[in-house]
Amino acid sequence: MKRIDFEAHFITDEWVSMMFERKGYPRYVRDKETNRCRVLWGPDGDEPIGDILLNKLLDLGEGRLKDMDAFGIDVQVLTLTTPGVELFDADTATELARKINDALSEVIKRHPDKFIGYAALAPQNPEAAADELERCVTELGFKGWKTGSNYGDSYLDEKKYWPILERAERLGVPVYLHPTFPAIPQLRTSYGFALAGAPFGFGVETAMSMMRLILSGVFDEYPSLKIILGHLGEGLPFLLKRIDYPYVKPWFLADARPPLERKPSECLKTNVFVTTSGNYFDPAFMCTYQALGIDRILLGTDYPYEDAEECMEFLKGLPISQEDKDKVYSLNAGQVGIGV
Amino acid sequence: MKRIDFEAHFITDEWVSMMFERKGYPRYVRDKETNRCRVLWGPDGDEPIGDILLNKLLDLGEGRLKDMDAFGIDVQVLTLTTPGVELFDADTATELARKINDALSEVIKRHPDKFIGYAALAPQNPEAAADELERCVTELGFKGWKTGSNYGDSYLDEKKYWPILERAERLGVPVYLHPTFPAIPQLRTSYGFALAGAPFGFGVETAMSMMRLILSGVFDEYPSLKIILGHLGEGLPFLLKRIDYPYVKPWFLADARPPLERKPSECLKTNVFVTTSGNYFDPAFMCTYQALGIDRILLGTDYPYEDAEECMEFLKGLPISQEDKDKVYSLNAGQVGIGV
Repeated sequence: MKRIDFEAHFITDEWVSMMFERKGYPRYVRDKETNRCRVLWGPDGDEPIGDILLNKLLDLGEGRLKDMDAFGIDVQVLTLTTPGVELFDADTATELARKINDALSEVIKRHPDKFIGYAALAPQNPEAAADELERCVTELGFKGWKTGSNYGDSYLDEKKYWPILERAERLGVPVYLHPTFPAIPQLRTSYGFALAGAPFGFGVETAMSMMRLILSGVFDEYPSLKIILGHLGEGLPFLLKRIDYPYVKPWFLADARPPLERKPSECLKTNVFVTTSGNYFDPAFMCTYQALGIDRILLGTDYPYEDAEECMEFLKGLPISQEDKDKVYSLNAGQVGIGV
Repeated sequence: MKRIDFEAHFITDEWVSMMFERKGYPRYVRDKETNRCRVLWGPDGDEPIGDILLNKLLDLGEGRLKDMDAFGIDVQVLTLTTPGVELFDADTATELARKINDALSEVIKRHPDKFIGYAALAPQNPEAAADELERCVTELGFKGWKTGSNYGDSYLDEKKYWPILERAERLGVPVYLHPTFPAIPQLRTSYGFALAGAPFGFGVETAMSMMRLILSGVFDEYPSLKIILGHLGEGLPFLLKRIDYPYVKPWFLADARPPLERKPSECLKTNVFVTTSGNYFDPAFMCTYQALGIDRILLGTDYPYEDAEECMEFLKGLPISQEDKDKVYSLNAGQVGIGV
C-alpha cells in the first residue's frame, strides 16, 4: 500500500527566472542585506521563502526522493507552485503551461513509481486550456489539474471557464483548487502575508471560490466533477450546516437564492475531497472527519512549504482507527483516479 | 441560575422608517407582488425577511417575552440589528445611536430582569462614540457595545477607532463584533445573500475583521479588551493553529510579520469569547470547545433570525457535561461583566 501525497509543489529554472524578471507583484526578489530569496506579494507584504525552500522546490530528483523516504511518502502528486501560470498574459501563460507540463512529464518518466503529475493550465484561454488538459491526461498520463483560487479579476465559477471543467469531468480527473495570493483588496494590507497568506487569506479566498462554484450550479451541469481542496477544506467543514441557510429556512423565498438541484452541503459532501495539508490541529481534523467522512480525506503535506514530518506525526497520533488512516494515506486515492 | 442569550436583535419604528426611506443599499423594501418585506442588499441580492421577522424585531414586550419563556431564555442581551447605525453619515448616525440607546434604556426599565443592553455607536465619530459608550455604561447600565464588521471602507483595526476600544477596556465592557453586509467586492455578486450573507460572507468578513484587530497589536495596547464573536467564532477556532504560521515557522523573518507580544492564537484564546448563534452543528461546536475551551463559549440564539428552539435543543443534545452546559447557558457571563 503506497502512501500518496496529494500536495507537493515544484518549480523549474525557467519559472524562477521569469519570477525574478517579472515586473509588478508577486515576484521573486533577493534581499540585498541577507541575500535571501523573498516572494514580494505587494508593496506592503512579502514571504521570506529563503534559498532552502527555493532549492527544495527546484529539486525533482535526489533531495526530494530522500525527503520522501525520510517521511514515509511513497508517491508525490507534483504541482507547479503558487502563484501559477495564471499570473501571465494569456499567450505567455498558455505556452509556459505546455513547457512546464512537458518538463514535468520528463521528471515522471525518470521516476514513474514516485511521481504523478497534475497539469498547469492557463485558464485565460479556456478552450486551449481544456485541450492542454486532455493532452496532459491522454498523452502524458497526468491525473488532474491544479489551479489557483483566482485569475486576477475572476474566479473559476464564471461560465467562460466551464469548458475546462466539462473536460475535467469527461476525462475523469479532479481539479485541485489551491490558494494563490488573494484578489480580495481588504486582505492586501500592511499586515502582508500574516493576513493575506497561509495563516488566513489563502484559505478564505479559496473557500469563497469553492462557494461560488457551488452556487453557480456547475455541479448540476457536471455532476461527476471532482474538486480537491487543501488545508482540511479551507474551513468549509466547520460551516457545513450554515451554508445551507437559504435552502432550508422555510421563510426564505426561492427567488432570492441561486437555483440548485442539491443543497450546498450535499455538493460539498459528494463533489469535494480535502487534503490534510497545513492544518495539523486535532479539533480541525476531527471536525472535518465528522462533517465530510473519512472517505473524503486525502493525504497532503504541502511539501516543501510545510513540514512533512509534522504532517505524518500528526496523522499517526490522531484518535482514529488504522483502517481510517490507511484510507487517508492511500486507499481514498482510488476515488480521484489513482490506483494503488 | 439565569440563562442569558448574548445575541438577540431589535429595531425601533424610527429605524424601520429610515430603512424604508433610505436611498442606496441596503434598505428595506416591500415586495409589490407578495407585499412581503425584504432587505435589499444590492442590485443583485436580497434577504426576504418578511413581516413575521420584522414584527419580532420590533416587539420589545409581550411577544418577545413569550418567546423567551417558551425557549427557556431568562435574559436577552439586546442589540440593534444589522446593518446598524454605521450605515448613515456621521452626524445622523451619532444622533440616531443616542436615540436608540435611550429607547433601549426605556425598554430595560420596564423589564429590568429580562433585558440587558449593548450600545449602538457611530464609530464615524470615534471620540463621540467613546463618550456615548461611557454614557450608556455609567448612566444607562449597558454592558457592552455591538458593532458591525465593517464601516464601509474601513475596519475596527484602524487606529482612528482605538479610542472606542480604549474606553471599552477602561469601562470593562466587551465589544460584540457582529457581521454586517460585507464590503468585500468579491462577495457582492448575483449570488446575493447565499454568498454574501449568513451562509458564508457574514462570517468570512467578521473573521477577517477579527484577524486584522489581532494583527494591529490592539491587544498589546489594551490587554484586557474583550471581543465577542457570534456563530462559534466565525470559523476561527478551525484555523487556530494555522493563524500562527508566520510566528512559529523558524524560517519566517521577523520583519515580514506584524510585531506582536503574543501569538495570534493566544489573543484569540484570551481576549475573545464566542457565542453559539446559528451554527448548530456538532462537529463545529466540538471543534470550538476543544480549540478555545468551554469557558469562552456563551449562549447566543441570534433571535429572531435563527430558531431559538433549535439552538436550545442543539445545546441540550451536545455530548458535554451538564456543568459545561451551565457555563454556556449562564456562568460564563460573569467573565464579560454580567453577574448571575
